[in-house]
Amino acid sequence: MKIGILGTGLVGRTLAGKLASLGHDLVMGTREVAALTARREPSPRGGQSFADWHGQNQKVKLGTFAEAAAHGELLINATSGSGALSALRMAGEKNFDGKVLIDVSNPLDFSHGMPPTLLVSNTDSLGEQVQRALPRARVVKTLNTMNAILMVEPRQLADGDHAVFVSGNDVAAKKQVTEILTGWFGWKQVIDLGDISTARGAEMILPLWVRLMGALGGPRFNFKIVQ
Amino acid sequence: MKIGILGTGLVGRTLAGKLASLGHDLVMGTREVAALTARREPSPRGGQSFADWHGQNQKVKLGTFAEAAAHGELLINATSGSGALSALRMAGEKNFDGKVLIDVSNPLDFSHGMPPTLLVSNTDSLGEQVQRALPRARVVKTLNTMNAILMVEPRQLADGDHAVFVSGNDVAAKKQVTEILTGWFGWKQVIDLGDISTARGAEMILPLWVRLMGALGGPRFNFKIVQ
Repeated sequence: MKIGILGTGLVGRTLAGKLASLGHDLVMGTREVAALTARREPSPRGGQSFADWHGQNQKVKLGTFAEAAAHGELLINATSGSGALSALRMAGEKNFDGKVLIDVSNPLDFSHGMPPTLLVSNTDSLGEQVQRALPRARVVKTLNTMNAILMVEPRQLADGDHAVFVSGNDVAAKKQVTEILTGWFGWKQVIDLGDISTARGAEMILPLWVRLMGALGGPRFNFKIVQ
Repeated sequence: MKIGILGTGLVGRTLAGKLASLGHDLVMGTREVAALTARREPSPRGGQSFADWHGQNQKVKLGTFAEAAAHGELLINATSGSGALSALRMAGEKNFDGKVLIDVSNPLDFSHGMPPTLLVSNTDSLGEQVQRALPRARVVKTLNTMNAILMVEPRQLADGDHAVFVSGNDVAAKKQVTEILTGWFGWKQVIDLGDISTARGAEMILPLWVRLMGALGGPRFNFKIVQ
């Protein structure tokens, strides 16, 4: 499938690497292609420089946000929360028309130090802001509640038997995304929370996630819903 | 042990019933004792009227907030989030001196309809507000992230192998509360998140909890942390 990923940080790379390994035709979008490929220093949280990563993932094409969005039949927003809305604007609203947009981003605000707070919460969410900014996109919020590698390799914990949530207004879009989560990645507990406003709950779990990472000594954990 | 419980709603009753069955000496505190015992209509979310409940739980004594707080060597705040700070003020600051105060309350705001939003979140929490209001109490936030009956009967799900969080500044208080959770109630996964500011994360999980209740068709579920 033709897939466009917006964002080239750790999350975007992890998703791109997995999807390319499954044979999909990927374009990753960034703000300025030349600036990104010229950068040789390690990424802030991603470790490797983008150039080094791209050297190992040459099947993944690189383009502007608009080129990635135009390319994909399926789109993924993997930008940072603070940059998401401007990235989506740069990608061009018409490039999202009728397409499923998986929104993985979290509205984390690191500007006041650690632990991060949320840029939006309680009465609104980034998922809703994305849907309002792109009313003809079929936004599905998901995969924002665990470490990047677990997003695409959930079987690394308990054979994939832990939870991922989906939120969105379009039932068919959520069905397609659920099939991607289970069939492509191996998720076993996919929970449909409801419409896009339920992204508030999925995003507001982040402050707990960050504290759990501290308490447990690392990011290799996830929530499971026990019934 | 002498235990004081502030609040006579569903959560307070469930905790009181369990603790009384374990042989503890309980006083439940309320705003106006006479008004509560006179009330015969069913409680808003608790089902039974307080009088009917108390008829079946006669070992539990009833008093003012101050009488309950003075009685307990161990105190539990099970008031509604919107009434918590005024209830604690009425209970009298000196009655908390040096005592462990388990704070179970959630800052849920139902005034704008369902689903509720949070009265405080992101950069503060009710747990922190309680600790600031009672600086000599040893506040431990816990048990606020699941249905009332599961708080005291966690073995009703997966033999108790799911998560309860503790947050607080006093290490010895958290140790005592952890022993209560495991030894008295049967919890198997007790996670110390850190100081009282980590109550933000534990409280901010509520919007997700409420949506999960809708998605799963009821409140009989809990989070487990898979590692």
